[in-house]
Amino acid sequence: MSGFDNLRVVLVSTRNPLNIGAAARAMSNFGVAELRVVNPYELAFREARSAVGASPILKKAREFTTVAEAVADCSLVVGTTAAQNRELQHPMHALPEAAPLIRSHLQSGSVALLFGSEKRGLSNHDFSFCQWLLHIPTRGQHLSMNLGQAVAVCLYQLAREAKASQVRKLQTERATAEQLSLLDEGLLDALRISGYLKPKAAAETEEKLRRLTRRLNLTVEDATTLLGMLRQIRWKLKSGQ
Amino acid sequence: MSGFDNLRVVLVSTRNPLNIGAAARAMSNFGVAELRVVNPYELAFREARSAVGASPILKKAREFTTVAEAVADCSLVVGTTAAQNRELQHPMHALPEAAPLIRSHLQSGSVALLFGSEKRGLSNHDFSFCQWLLHIPTRGQHLSMNLGQAVAVCLYQLAREAKASQVRKLQTERATAEQLSLLDEGLLDALRISGYLKPKAAAETEEKLRRLTRRLNLTVEDATTLLGMLRQIRWKLKSGQ
Repeated sequence: MSGFDNLRVVLVSTRNPLNIGAAARAMSNFGVAELRVVNPYELAFREARSAVGASPILKKAREFTTVAEAVADCSLVVGTTAAQNRELQHPMHALPEAAPLIRSHLQSGSVALLFGSEKRGLSNHDFSFCQWLLHIPTRGQHLSMNLGQAVAVCLYQLAREAKASQVRKLQTERATAEQLSLLDEGLLDALRISGYLKPKAAAETEEKLRRLTRRLNLTVEDATTLLGMLRQIRWKLKSGQ
Repeated sequence: MSGFDNLRVVLVSTRNPLNIGAAARAMSNFGVAELRVVNPYELAFREARSAVGASPILKKAREFTTVAEAVADCSLVVGTTAAQNRELQHPMHALPEAAPLIRSHLQSGSVALLFGSEKRGLSNHDFSFCQWLLHIPTRGQHLSMNLGQAVAVCLYQLAREAKASQVRKLQTERATAEQLSLLDEGLLDALRISGYLKPKAAAETEEKLRRLTRRLNLTVEDATTLLGMLRQIRWKLKSGQ
């Protein structure tokens, strides 16, 4: 039940505090300590009675106002979704296949597992911070699970994966979300100066770019190299203006 | 998600109707239709709002006053328990080992899966109707799960057992070596103009860059986007010279 020190459960825009409590309880059941909440609807969530035996987790949950900040120190960001057929821009794995990937990453870096609000799930904007998505295989006619139950099922599968398989230890450390954000900003700046970025489509290009950089599976070293290149290119672009 | 026609979920002495609703929702998610309740504390459980999308299951749930009656037509009765170490008279299986046994039985006969009350779980009397018991492997310091979450985890594992899951095939095509070479050249050109590329280390940087672009696992679309961006950046770099 160990090996979860690097796992962060991130609840985005949760409406019902009982679901935050239920998530905390499942985390305690399966040995995951770090809960992060982004813009919870109910600010008094820390007293949720559903967190039976898990109030320490709820008490030290960290609050954030944006997904970007909540995942900044994580090198793998995975979004959960009930939509198995919806047109999605991201790679998608069913939970049984996703679990060993997450497990393997946890050996060398931090992983954020994102859960959206009860009504709407995660938004496309939220997705743009994710490397890939996972879904729990449910019945086609009734895909959407209760939030607390979805958290429990994911953590059960991850905990099970822990002992079932000894995964190859990754030697390379993945770039953090913060590095990827710097990369996005640098690239956008260069594109803006170059006239590639059309003001009307700026937001769209920004999201597209964010999805792209997250697909690249960059190492810390790759990201550092690319950031250095970009710095020089931007300097030159600006000096020529 | 089929093959559950012979499975009955039996909730014994449940106190909170929201948990009965949550169990119904998980049943609907994983394709289990038949819910049975034994002496529910709250008689108005059929209106539980937590049964999002699962009210048909709740509406036709059958009520019983004894466990004996509730399991009478089943040829395998399995009790669930959080107690992993308690002295029990029964054989016990962890859920991952229990699932194939239940699955196999479902092909020829009915199985009742019993869940006890939130406070006390199943009694020794309830256990006496069971062939064997199952537990969900949880952390030693916090064994007891929320009822709705426990039902969801059990049904997920049973449904998973059903099929060696089909991975959704990604439709994306990988970038060609030719595209990657164009990318290398474009990037090197931009770096040369920017003064990033030191003549002495040019060959080394070129190789480093090539290794990097090949690590990125780019799709055809990604490569096309990046090439377009680079073209514009280089144009601007040159016009400023």
